[in-house]
Amino acid sequence: MRDHPHGMDIAILIFDKITALDAVGPYEVLSRLPGATVTFVAAEPGQYRTENGMLALTADRAFAEMPRQDVIVVPGGFGTRALLRDEPTLNWIREANHRTMVTASVCTGSLLLGAAGLLHGRKATTHWLLLDKLREFGAEPVSERIVEDGKLLMAAGVSAGIDMALALAARLAGQQVAEAIQLGIEYDPQPPFKCGSTKTARPEIVELVRARSDQFA
Amino acid sequence: MRDHPHGMDIAILIFDKITALDAVGPYEVLSRLPGATVTFVAAEPGQYRTENGMLALTADRAFAEMPRQDVIVVPGGFGTRALLRDEPTLNWIREANHRTMVTASVCTGSLLLGAAGLLHGRKATTHWLLLDKLREFGAEPVSERIVEDGKLLMAAGVSAGIDMALALAARLAGQQVAEAIQLGIEYDPQPPFKCGSTKTARPEIVELVRARSDQFA
Repeated sequence: MRDHPHGMDIAILIFDKITALDAVGPYEVLSRLPGATVTFVAAEPGQYRTENGMLALTADRAFAEMPRQDVIVVPGGFGTRALLRDEPTLNWIREANHRTMVTASVCTGSLLLGAAGLLHGRKATTHWLLLDKLREFGAEPVSERIVEDGKLLMAAGVSAGIDMALALAARLAGQQVAEAIQLGIEYDPQPPFKCGSTKTARPEIVELVRARSDQFA
Repeated sequence: MRDHPHGMDIAILIFDKITALDAVGPYEVLSRLPGATVTFVAAEPGQYRTENGMLALTADRAFAEMPRQDVIVVPGGFGTRALLRDEPTLNWIREANHRTMVTASVCTGSLLLGAAGLLHGRKATTHWLLLDKLREFGAEPVSERIVEDGKLLMAAGVSAGIDMALALAARLAGQQVAEAIQLGIEYDPQPPFKCGSTKTARPEIVELVRARSDQFA
């Protein structure tokens, strides 16, 4: 894919009750690919609010205006629940996927890939709280930060979209460009706690998040 | 500060040519503090676009509507250049800072703290490409991911705002809540390359980013 870094056409799905970082992490990486255009797309252009209502992101284009992309990114958030039976959204994912080089998701965005019928017999991942739900779409849940199967590229919860997008940048434009982007966004993470996955978090923290999953996931 | 996690009033500054992740990283963490309200504020309410024009974030409130916050977060981006002499913005930062418990910045947002006169004689940090510029405001540049001086809390470039916000969440609401938020956003970073700071990046990558600093910083 390294011969196509220029003119790369990337679409990120936007919807009501989106998790903002799911979309903005990949945007911050992929928009820095030389020659790439990132377009935020929704059923209709306009402002869409995050699950808590505190932030509005703007979709500039409607599905109908975006018939062909090199890459699509499907973010997650509470809003995915309402979209699991939303034919315009699932149709757009299905149709776009026919033409993409890479179809990507972050967090519960992969449930939409599943609802669109793309995950049957595939390995897949999502936010750790929802991993089992992937089976409903015929997928094999994998508890890893980034899962790849064919041209599908899926990230675990929320912040994993940054790691996924950097890996994707390397595939699309080569490692040197991806390293430059990583240094440009100074992605040298130093999390204050060792608790970012269920493998490292204290059991009481896992239980706390599980109990308040309507608030944290 | 742990007795004030509820009703916490947090404002994040928005402006033209902002770096989206500078604002959305801290938002994604701080909006999950129990009882906290995060408000996006600008000179005037409305949509403001990132430096590349590809994403619009909405400011819901004007400076005049936001006289008192517990925490303000000043993100960075190219747009900070134009704001270094913008009195409405600098005045808001100055006035808000009189009443905050914590005044925070991400990336080149600290240059606005400097222009507002808050950094004289202080330790400070910013994106690695702009560290030296902090001296113009009487600050002592420190090449660390998070720098604290009094109630000022400053993050290095772009993605460092996530680490900073988690540290801030622990201060505001205790470590257990901060750990739950970190697990909730599955912040278990696994960057594909070891190049997120000038200490770890290959010299040719540092030079590449420096040469294209108008594109990467």
